[in-house]
Amino acid sequence: MTVCIWGVGTSSFGRQPDRLPAELAWEAVNEALEDAAVDGVDAAYVGTVFGAPGVAQRALWGVGITGIPIITVENACASGTTALHEAREAILAGRFERVLALGVEHISTLFEGPIAPEATDPEQASGLLLPALYALSASRHMADHGTTASDLAQVAVKNSTHGALNPRAQRRRAVTEEEVLASRPIAEPLTLFQCAGLSDAAAAAVLGPARRGERDIPIRASALRSGEAWDQDSEHVWGFDIVRATAGDAFEEAGLGPHDADVVELHDAFTIGELVTIEALGLVGEGEAAARVRAGELSLGGTQPVNPSGGLLSRGHPLGATGLAQVAELVWQLRGDAGDRQVEGARTALVETMGGGAAGLDGNGCVVAILGG
Amino acid sequence: MTVCIWGVGTSSFGRQPDRLPAELAWEAVNEALEDAAVDGVDAAYVGTVFGAPGVAQRALWGVGITGIPIITVENACASGTTALHEAREAILAGRFERVLALGVEHISTLFEGPIAPEATDPEQASGLLLPALYALSASRHMADHGTTASDLAQVAVKNSTHGALNPRAQRRRAVTEEEVLASRPIAEPLTLFQCAGLSDAAAAAVLGPARRGERDIPIRASALRSGEAWDQDSEHVWGFDIVRATAGDAFEEAGLGPHDADVVELHDAFTIGELVTIEALGLVGEGEAAARVRAGELSLGGTQPVNPSGGLLSRGHPLGATGLAQVAELVWQLRGDAGDRQVEGARTALVETMGGGAAGLDGNGCVVAILGG
Repeated sequence: MTVCIWGVGTSSFGRQPDRLPAELAWEAVNEALEDAAVDGVDAAYVGTVFGAPGVAQRALWGVGITGIPIITVENACASGTTALHEAREAILAGRFERVLALGVEHISTLFEGPIAPEATDPEQASGLLLPALYALSASRHMADHGTTASDLAQVAVKNSTHGALNPRAQRRRAVTEEEVLASRPIAEPLTLFQCAGLSDAAAAAVLGPARRGERDIPIRASALRSGEAWDQDSEHVWGFDIVRATAGDAFEEAGLGPHDADVVELHDAFTIGELVTIEALGLVGEGEAAARVRAGELSLGGTQPVNPSGGLLSRGHPLGATGLAQVAELVWQLRGDAGDRQVEGARTALVETMGGGAAGLDGNGCVVAILGG
Repeated sequence: MTVCIWGVGTSSFGRQPDRLPAELAWEAVNEALEDAAVDGVDAAYVGTVFGAPGVAQRALWGVGITGIPIITVENACASGTTALHEAREAILAGRFERVLALGVEHISTLFEGPIAPEATDPEQASGLLLPALYALSASRHMADHGTTASDLAQVAVKNSTHGALNPRAQRRRAVTEEEVLASRPIAEPLTLFQCAGLSDAAAAAVLGPARRGERDIPIRASALRSGEAWDQDSEHVWGFDIVRATAGDAFEEAGLGPHDADVVELHDAFTIGELVTIEALGLVGEGEAAARVRAGELSLGGTQPVNPSGGLLSRGHPLGATGLAQVAELVWQLRGDAGDRQVEGARTALVETMGGGAAGLDGNGCVVAILGG
């Protein structure tokens, strides 16, 4: 059996402190149910990182979804795609026919700047918050591969150019390299425009077995892993190994390789994250990502567009909702419904989400899925 | 295939503000791995309600469990048994062979009295915290069935008598009805000794297919549901319908009925919860629970002992860990390893966990599983 995505939906993205998480979920779920042309589901997996206990039940009751199994999952920034992964597995196992995968996050009222340390996490208490962890990756990547501050900024230039075409993006203005480098320093060498913005949002997908018609998008493969320990002696920068291993699982299941994806949505919470992930996925060789971004190969109109939505950098990063927002973008791309940012002829798509801190003290998780023909 | 519980373990239970959640998890996981006679697992499902993002990865890294899928689940007080349910389903589906189900909660540093309202939950913001919600159930049960304050207190007397025999319980003193009724009022008619204590703890189970030997305990059935809407016009008190429906699913899967369980661990977060659940499970008829408790039928030595561990009232209630602590007790009972609180000849056991607020505004979830021969 092949599990398909029948429909997708998202709420608006942005800082929406005055709206309830449930309201955001209603927008996303109603759009996904309508897109899937169903009036209910048999189970729901709901991804959230900082959502209050019960947020899933509160949200789903409002759209009439009660009485079925509702299971909330957390897997850091990969929580949304973890919900997708578990929903697909539940259908493959024959447990349910129609399953909702929902991601919801309301964090603008919880954090002002970077996400604050957890009281019981010694890694974070030392100051190694996510911007700092990604900054370490950037410095290491610069030392290993000659990556420059300009190279990092070019990722933000590319994704903001894409995001300007995305009516659902939180940031819709194309920025220049000069603007990126002149924006406020966050963690050397990362500047403000290289960091995804805090966002309140929800995103949803309805999954089920294949039906007639061309609107349903098959999930060819999905893989999930948690990270091995990482420290300064590791061969690669933080995050590389888990993305490579998880992608390897997904490519094996699909019988495809990295160059078979016509379009990619990946986890650019910070610019360096996109460069590392492009290399870890095998889209380009190690150390080659910066040059390929600069050459335009990964832009809309290039050979293998990455983050045509504008990525997390433009769309915003509502943690638990992010993975399913990526999936929604790819469903629109594969249907030819992506408007001004359409990747022409896209038939196969790859989504990658990776989150968490350095394995060992904070752990991380990754999901890679391959959608389409 | 029948999925079995190969081994179980728990941390110490109690207010342990100076210990990290990971330390509690290490105690439980190490005991469960040793009990299962394995040195690793292929995946982990981790239940927690208020655990910080990444708590599962931090905890498992410390016992060498990395690189595998780790999925954190939340389902209110049923989070631990939700982890068990999903772990079993993953094995049944052929996804993994050996799966860890872990529950961990560290709440003594988060709350002083009742668990505080969530900022975005209008139900809780109105003051309808869990003690109040259960108090409404108690008042309704009194009106419908003539249940008395003395009847409620007798549940605490029974469970504290059992808990006094449990070396892992947080409260190990048998209390009298007079003491229960004289303890501090919490929410009329519930007094302090009728409310489970805040507890920091972890509990774990290792699951896998049947092996040789008699120590592995089969999971005959497991069911999970979320609650339908409930209000003052509902036919039964809050919680009754979801427990009855979920138990019905489990009995159907097992081909058994409520009287086939030789021993039961159920969700007595408050005394009234035990009376309602005894009736909802069908162990006794509606309105009969109080008389059957008073007659000693549900005590150790009675016809169908309920909560031989002392229940949540004695063991403490570390939300996400509770369900797996119940399961650990039943595994010990079915192996004949329960010491002074052994239910003689126990061959079939039932575990029930239900949590969350009133469906609609807060939603609830329930898991019922049937273990043994």
